[in-house]
Amino acid sequence: MAVNTENPGFCRSRLEELLKKRFFYCPSYEIYGGVSGLYDYGPPGMALEQNILNVWRKHFVYEENMLEIGTSIVTPHEVLETSGHVSKFRDWMCKDPSTGEVFRADHIIKEILLSRIKKRVESGLEGEKVEGGASGTKFDTLDESLSRIREYEDIISRIDGYDGEGLSRVIEEYDIRNPATNVRMEGPVGFNLMFATEIGPKGNMTGYLRPETAQGQFLNFNKLLEFNNGKMPFASVVVGKSFRNEISPRSGLLRMREFTMAEIEHYVDPLNKDHRRFNEVENVKMKFLTREIQMSGKEEVIEMKIGEAVARGILENTTLAYFLARIHLFLIRIGMNKEKLRFRQHMNNEMAHYASDCWDAELLTSYGWIECVGCADRAAYDLTVHSEKTKEKLVVRELLPKPMEVTEWVVNVDKKKIGPLFKKDLKVVEQAISSWSNEDKIRYRDQAASEGRIVVKVEDGREFEIPSSLFTIEQVKKTISVREYIPNVIEPSFGIGRILYSLIEHSYWIRSDDVDRCVLSFPPIVAPVKCLLVPLSNNSAFDPIIDKLSFELRQLGISHKVDDSSAAIGRRYSRNDELGTPFGITVDFQTVNDGSLTLRERDTTRQIRASEKEILRVIKELSEGLISWDDVLKDFPIFNKQITDIPEITDLYIRE
Amino acid sequence: MAVNTENPGFCRSRLEELLKKRFFYCPSYEIYGGVSGLYDYGPPGMALEQNILNVWRKHFVYEENMLEIGTSIVTPHEVLETSGHVSKFRDWMCKDPSTGEVFRADHIIKEILLSRIKKRVESGLEGEKVEGGASGTKFDTLDESLSRIREYEDIISRIDGYDGEGLSRVIEEYDIRNPATNVRMEGPVGFNLMFATEIGPKGNMTGYLRPETAQGQFLNFNKLLEFNNGKMPFASVVVGKSFRNEISPRSGLLRMREFTMAEIEHYVDPLNKDHRRFNEVENVKMKFLTREIQMSGKEEVIEMKIGEAVARGILENTTLAYFLARIHLFLIRIGMNKEKLRFRQHMNNEMAHYASDCWDAELLTSYGWIECVGCADRAAYDLTVHSEKTKEKLVVRELLPKPMEVTEWVVNVDKKKIGPLFKKDLKVVEQAISSWSNEDKIRYRDQAASEGRIVVKVEDGREFEIPSSLFTIEQVKKTISVREYIPNVIEPSFGIGRILYSLIEHSYWIRSDDVDRCVLSFPPIVAPVKCLLVPLSNNSAFDPIIDKLSFELRQLGISHKVDDSSAAIGRRYSRNDELGTPFGITVDFQTVNDGSLTLRERDTTRQIRASEKEILRVIKELSEGLISWDDVLKDFPIFNKQITDIPEITDLYIRE
Repeated sequence: MAVNTENPGFCRSRLEELLKKRFFYCPSYEIYGGVSGLYDYGPPGMALEQNILNVWRKHFVYEENMLEIGTSIVTPHEVLETSGHVSKFRDWMCKDPSTGEVFRADHIIKEILLSRIKKRVESGLEGEKVEGGASGTKFDTLDESLSRIREYEDIISRIDGYDGEGLSRVIEEYDIRNPATNVRMEGPVGFNLMFATEIGPKGNMTGYLRPETAQGQFLNFNKLLEFNNGKMPFASVVVGKSFRNEISPRSGLLRMREFTMAEIEHYVDPLNKDHRRFNEVENVKMKFLTREIQMSGKEEVIEMKIGEAVARGILENTTLAYFLARIHLFLIRIGMNKEKLRFRQHMNNEMAHYASDCWDAELLTSYGWIECVGCADRAAYDLTVHSEKTKEKLVVRELLPKPMEVTEWVVNVDKKKIGPLFKKDLKVVEQAISSWSNEDKIRYRDQAASEGRIVVKVEDGREFEIPSSLFTIEQVKKTISVREYIPNVIEPSFGIGRILYSLIEHSYWIRSDDVDRCVLSFPPIVAPVKCLLVPLSNNSAFDPIIDKLSFELRQLGISHKVDDSSAAIGRRYSRNDELGTPFGITVDFQTVNDGSLTLRERDTTRQIRASEKEILRVIKELSEGLISWDDVLKDFPIFNKQITDIPEITDLYIRE
Repeated sequence: MAVNTENPGFCRSRLEELLKKRFFYCPSYEIYGGVSGLYDYGPPGMALEQNILNVWRKHFVYEENMLEIGTSIVTPHEVLETSGHVSKFRDWMCKDPSTGEVFRADHIIKEILLSRIKKRVESGLEGEKVEGGASGTKFDTLDESLSRIREYEDIISRIDGYDGEGLSRVIEEYDIRNPATNVRMEGPVGFNLMFATEIGPKGNMTGYLRPETAQGQFLNFNKLLEFNNGKMPFASVVVGKSFRNEISPRSGLLRMREFTMAEIEHYVDPLNKDHRRFNEVENVKMKFLTREIQMSGKEEVIEMKIGEAVARGILENTTLAYFLARIHLFLIRIGMNKEKLRFRQHMNNEMAHYASDCWDAELLTSYGWIECVGCADRAAYDLTVHSEKTKEKLVVRELLPKPMEVTEWVVNVDKKKIGPLFKKDLKVVEQAISSWSNEDKIRYRDQAASEGRIVVKVEDGREFEIPSSLFTIEQVKKTISVREYIPNVIEPSFGIGRILYSLIEHSYWIRSDDVDRCVLSFPPIVAPVKCLLVPLSNNSAFDPIIDKLSFELRQLGISHKVDDSSAAIGRRYSRNDELGTPFGITVDFQTVNDGSLTLRERDTTRQIRASEKEILRVIKELSEGLISWDDVLKDFPIFNKQITDIPEITDLYIRE
């Protein structure tokens, strides 16, 4: 598993060592032994996250005037009960009764079946002992073995869709045991993934840490719409921490208990899901793995322009398509390898409880294909359930181009007489009446006509009789000038930690001429530090030059780092290659004489030489992604002078 | 309380209405009734927060190459037990037994005593009924009344220093009752302010939401020091959410249960707390309220240069002084009123359990003087306790300029013989020996000499006898070339929500010529939106001009908003004055002809007219704080043409 099959030289443990050494991230509370699923970012990891988010905001939020808000993490029980998270946001866990160790049921099943497949394949597919089995030791024939492998593969491919009962059946039928103890798993039981807490000192208000940032946005829908001057469509945004109390998290930044999300909720008219800027992206070529292809048991992607995917009905509407294309462009822009990016549609039984369609942007890493961005059509699910629960309408009111005549059933109640009849129950009766659909009204009108009274059932189940004389139900014509609707929501949702880790893997390589020299080729716009300042030696003549350059770079807003350690200059560069620093300025004795500087590019290790002013201008434009290194080489000749030509002088260290 | 005494026209409820209407912030989960102490930021509030943090990062982090990291919110019990938060991070709450309502004891006492003072003052100080009291109704003389007021004032001024017992005594002695029910308060009992939760599914790992961001930084000290190439002094930084489960939070953004903090931990050699850049700030003039002045019962600030405060011994060292001056400059830079800013030293009984000295930057608001930034000297407290608990050294190792000879007591144990003697207990015995101080060693040496054996007490309390023949304790001379020390920590800690709210109050005013027109005069660098684009009317000739301007502003990274609503142009400007938008561009018919634009400044409502290129350049420089509006007026004449001179055309609305 640790070797990325698409990248044969890749070795995960070596990369992890680099990330630890350069303090990209580390387990939280490490000196206390750490807590699985919790990680801290060191300075380069933090800067990388911030830079990714900066590009993200420019690409999505500012580009389309989305409304970014900040919402609370601590969420009361009632909100998440309404959204369905209290009952449905869970994983299945099983337990080894001999040790008490718990496992995520789907993960342990998958792991064990994969290892069985591997064992069978390695042993030449036949003559292998059958695991467990009532009849004791026997050996499968080749055919039996092949069919068993197909069975395992089938379960693995559908594992995301199993409920507790299904998982329980698999554990029993396939005799799933803890590999460490060989004891049969118990369970599975459902475990809610939300961290619970108590709000306030009274012990009567349960809360949870939000499992997603979406709910806080939905609850503010009316205020957001008003802030947007009532105009549709529009989007709200939250960037912040979410929490999932994972059962047994491993796999590093890919499965954290606490993680940064960036979520967009785009509100759209359900009758018109066209996106007005779709034409800007329709020619973007992307790789799709549709539901149909997956159902046929294959993993083949089809590559096509997003416009074609819409035309062929693979994508239902241009708003969903627009966002998929924009996600694709964003991921490429921050430096992902386009060959390791695909868009996979969720299977019907795999979608979250609120989604009506969902596509994931998946990135290939040494852990396999990883979901890094989800793009779900949540339809009107959330706004509807919150609206019903709170009795607060979460709707758009749209002035019709011209007034429309509609026919409606109307209930008129004789308020004077009905009040004394029901006294304190009046309110619930009125509530029941106001919730009648057109069908209800027709049914009650018929009942009143035939029986002289109706029986109204109220919310708590009680029934009340109302004589026909106290009300009328009639059809009236009405002119309406406003259409009222609950918008649908398209939700692009970004797991920033997963994106960050995948980007590190996609950016990692080892110089072919020196296996000890690793490089992280982040694009300048996301690189944690843009520029390294390297005085040739610790000669004090360089100090004022370095100080001045540092000041100038700060004024320009370019993050930089001075490395004036006594290490050889090549060593200093190569350790900053490991930080992904794209540019380096060398200050040498010629600088003291004429002010000129050497600028080195990380990936090619090529250099140019120019005046301070020119070098600063070039770095500024490179850092902001306005020009590329190739553009620079068109304007400046490559500089090859021995003393500062880094590759050749790795071991040279001039002592003063 | 709602009227800011320094700002007589100020009315808090009116400001709050504006903030609600313009969606700066709102209670979280408002459609569910809200949860006290939890707030959401709408788009302007969020942008304001982000801009404040951007200026903060430039001012502190980038300016001094501080190491910003990202740490986890969910924190295991053991860490916060060690830091002292489990036992000491609490408030005292009392309860009305008749309703179950709970109050923060110090708050309710203060509130009731203040209202008693007010009542006495209003009733002319004499002839007023004594509240409660064993002897029933009687009336105080003038002298009695005055002395009573002094008593109340004395309690109020010292309330932060009371422990549970002290508060209990006050409640009894002064008969503190719930104003709503007139029932005597019960308690107080201590309530820990941390939100508790369970980590993982096993139910055996309690955690808390962090109450401050500091601990995660301390635990990473060794990695941070290494990342900084071992150089001291340096600082780490975390910007993020912290949580306090307040007993009964009111006062809006000033007392939130979930809030954004920006905390700097500056690590410094305890033997040398000089700051190398102190000379850059020594002439900054600031207002100080020292511990001595407060102890004398006064609230008089003394204004002086920070250099003088150091010279007079008011501030203990130049690192603390440097940060106080930098905090002062930051607060002024984002737009605080310098007349409403003071630095107050904590009283000895008021400091957090970890602090050895502490100064607060306090801002005057309608809630009184509010602590917005704390600057504590945490000495070596945290690094020491974590180091002792985890046995992981959190120290700086500094190469001495030249090796030093020191005398040390050394214990040599005969390993071969002691092993078989203690078997499995060997480890704890060795641990006990290795923890001996110099005094212990001398004492044991004496014991061994006189008794022929020593008795060693180990961690769990058991005692072991060791014969003198198995060890020696002797004084040896040693040459050391490295000095090892635990650094001290100076901690400037910023409550971003409090800063944001105070800034809003400091920026709020009402135009004297029109009481309906409120303005938030944020400096351009922090204003949520920098520029408003206003087409004179909804004539379609303006559309392409507005689109192009919008595109240009986006390229320049200038946040802007188009207001093409049908409201009168003056109305559109005045509602953006309420958002604090500093600049507005008007597009009118002359623009269609010659491309020229009108630029309006919010506070003066003055305008200039120039070409698109010039206007864009000016806005860019204004937004980044590089030039002021006065600078602009030096280069461009004031433009007074009737049609776009806003104040005069408030009611003009040209329909096409």
